[in-house]
Amino acid sequence: MQSVIKGLLQKNSSKIVMLVMDGLGGLPYRGPDGPFTGKTELEAAQAPNMDKLSSVSACGMHIPVGAGITPGSGPGHLGLFGYDPLKWEIGRGVLEAVGLGLDVKKTDVAIRCNYATIESNVITDRRAGRPSTDKMRKVTERLQKEIQDIDGVRFIFGPGMEHRFAVVMRFPDAVPPEAAMVNDSDPQMEGKAPLPLIPKHPKAEKTAAVASKFINKVEEILRDEHPQNYALVRGFSTHPRMPSFLEAYGLRALAIASYPMYRGLARLIGMEAPDFEGSFEEEIEYMKDNWSSYDFFFIHFKKTDSFGEDGNFAEKARKIEEADKALPSILALKPDALIITGDHSTPAVMKGHSWHPVPVMLHAPYVLGGVTESFSERQCLKGELGIIPSTALMPLALANTGRLKKFGS
Amino acid sequence: MQSVIKGLLQKNSSKIVMLVMDGLGGLPYRGPDGPFTGKTELEAAQAPNMDKLSSVSACGMHIPVGAGITPGSGPGHLGLFGYDPLKWEIGRGVLEAVGLGLDVKKTDVAIRCNYATIESNVITDRRAGRPSTDKMRKVTERLQKEIQDIDGVRFIFGPGMEHRFAVVMRFPDAVPPEAAMVNDSDPQMEGKAPLPLIPKHPKAEKTAAVASKFINKVEEILRDEHPQNYALVRGFSTHPRMPSFLEAYGLRALAIASYPMYRGLARLIGMEAPDFEGSFEEEIEYMKDNWSSYDFFFIHFKKTDSFGEDGNFAEKARKIEEADKALPSILALKPDALIITGDHSTPAVMKGHSWHPVPVMLHAPYVLGGVTESFSERQCLKGELGIIPSTALMPLALANTGRLKKFGS
Repeated sequence: MQSVIKGLLQKNSSKIVMLVMDGLGGLPYRGPDGPFTGKTELEAAQAPNMDKLSSVSACGMHIPVGAGITPGSGPGHLGLFGYDPLKWEIGRGVLEAVGLGLDVKKTDVAIRCNYATIESNVITDRRAGRPSTDKMRKVTERLQKEIQDIDGVRFIFGPGMEHRFAVVMRFPDAVPPEAAMVNDSDPQMEGKAPLPLIPKHPKAEKTAAVASKFINKVEEILRDEHPQNYALVRGFSTHPRMPSFLEAYGLRALAIASYPMYRGLARLIGMEAPDFEGSFEEEIEYMKDNWSSYDFFFIHFKKTDSFGEDGNFAEKARKIEEADKALPSILALKPDALIITGDHSTPAVMKGHSWHPVPVMLHAPYVLGGVTESFSERQCLKGELGIIPSTALMPLALANTGRLKKFGS
Repeated sequence: MQSVIKGLLQKNSSKIVMLVMDGLGGLPYRGPDGPFTGKTELEAAQAPNMDKLSSVSACGMHIPVGAGITPGSGPGHLGLFGYDPLKWEIGRGVLEAVGLGLDVKKTDVAIRCNYATIESNVITDRRAGRPSTDKMRKVTERLQKEIQDIDGVRFIFGPGMEHRFAVVMRFPDAVPPEAAMVNDSDPQMEGKAPLPLIPKHPKAEKTAAVASKFINKVEEILRDEHPQNYALVRGFSTHPRMPSFLEAYGLRALAIASYPMYRGLARLIGMEAPDFEGSFEEEIEYMKDNWSSYDFFFIHFKKTDSFGEDGNFAEKARKIEEADKALPSILALKPDALIITGDHSTPAVMKGHSWHPVPVMLHAPYVLGGVTESFSERQCLKGELGIIPSTALMPLALANTGRLKKFGS
């Protein structure tokens, strides 16, 4: 469908805002710390601005990947941006690197790494005794100093939580997807030797050779650092190479997100994503300051997901209220289309992402409206958009801003 | 899906009527010449017959091509007839020819033509000064007299508006799609020479050669007719070659439409489409007269679209009322299934086709019913059909008339 859309694009000066309240969708809370009201987080929240807006918007529910499929943040956002998450899989190495704030370019092979303990070439602890994040950050910084380049391939390290880190191998030129066809070295069991890296394709030979040298170098540098005296590598992957947002939609896009993972995802599809950190109000202020330079604005609001993951129903509802208070300052910018939704559901009662469809409203001039009374799962079910795949939202945003020509005549 | 349906077909003597109110779907009017009532054209119209019928029918909304995609009349009708418009694209030349009342058969290559002005082999006006339709009709008739056949290929001319006309090149035998792989001669800019016609496939060689001779002949005949002394050609295309309605569904189909374009579209899929012109009541009368000879009746009601395109909300609503008044005479024929819908939405507020889903009701004995209170966008959203692709309507019509066997056992 993206190729059909591409053939219909026409330019204009309209502005599209997509506000993603991470993990927005919810379920009625059935936990011990409150009465059972039957209300979801959205229904429990006092969000008069969103409620009012929804009644003059096109509402519906969207499904990120497919019935019953719980998406990670990567697929969730890809769907919102109109990229079929079943077609464009983001490799584990790339996702880890991006999540740790590293850029991944078309020249790169990214890998997830674990500090581990090795004794006589046998892995005795795959997580090096779960060392502290602070301690490991210093170890990773030391590795970055000592390993900059192997055979013309640049190494870029991203420290992670506890024993985790990521590495981007940056080649001099763009690499094909086959360059990542290398197995994990992690034997997935303690008491075994690490697996040698074997290229599964001729184009992966250099990757495997250089990564093997990298592993040896790490071992050499960390020889006396027991228990973190080794690194296991997994998830070799390249840039997913989807068309950029500009290529796919003709939109210059700005991503405003305080968490590195979401900036990284946005950069994978060529959005500008400055290293912005600030409150939601500051995110909106930043959008305002950059209003004239972009056509599309992705604003990410993280806390709904965080409290959903914590199982904190009341705080998730409170965060919805916080976002609601800031809504007038978005509307004051008069976007031609405003989408408010989440990348997936994170019901507090489930303490995690879920497969449930996500409520969405699309505010634009040419909607039916008058169908829903408030912004919630139950109301959006009645909405004029119906229950749609997430990938339908971008075509709808483009249509609603006059950016699509007629199909056929 | 069409091939699955084909495998399940069984014959009976049931009658299906599909009433297409062109551009039926609408939006609340926000224009200057009336109060904002929040009502759509369908909601504003007094259509008691349709309202009553909808409450004992299966209602829903259908999407012609895909989310956000505004269909032309071609794709809109193909979808209604069960042919996926993304799969069966109708070429520009064919659509133009059909729109001007020419038949296009499997032996044909159709092209769109423009009268143009040429001086010393440079196009100085791509539209020959936008001459009057009447004047050009005479020129086209003269060309038709003088050019009947070139190298065994028959030439059939269709006069159009102002500088436009269409030509069907009729070969002695069926031609493959590759026969149309010839570039446009139109350089798309004035001050340039027309482009020579180059076959892009061996099977297009004869098309290019004969069409080149045609262009030369036109130039010769119009030598002294400045400013219309040349013809530019575009959009070489063949019959889209989809299975006929009879092959696909086992239905003998009659199309009753007063506009040539819709008759032409119907003929492309093998419907009978006599050169009927008359009021809607006369269309229904004509259907009645032919009731015993066909299984499927496509009746086209144009004016809803025309007034939508004009931005005339009140008149569009009035045309809905006009159709409503005639409904009893359709019901009097006791069709086994009656579908009432549009080929796309044409909200008066947008003065053009739009991407919005189209309300539909399917009246037949085995429906749930009792779900909607009237026939409108907002009511149909609640309907038992849901929001479905347009291509789902034909299988539903077949099922509701007992024309589909069980799938599997």
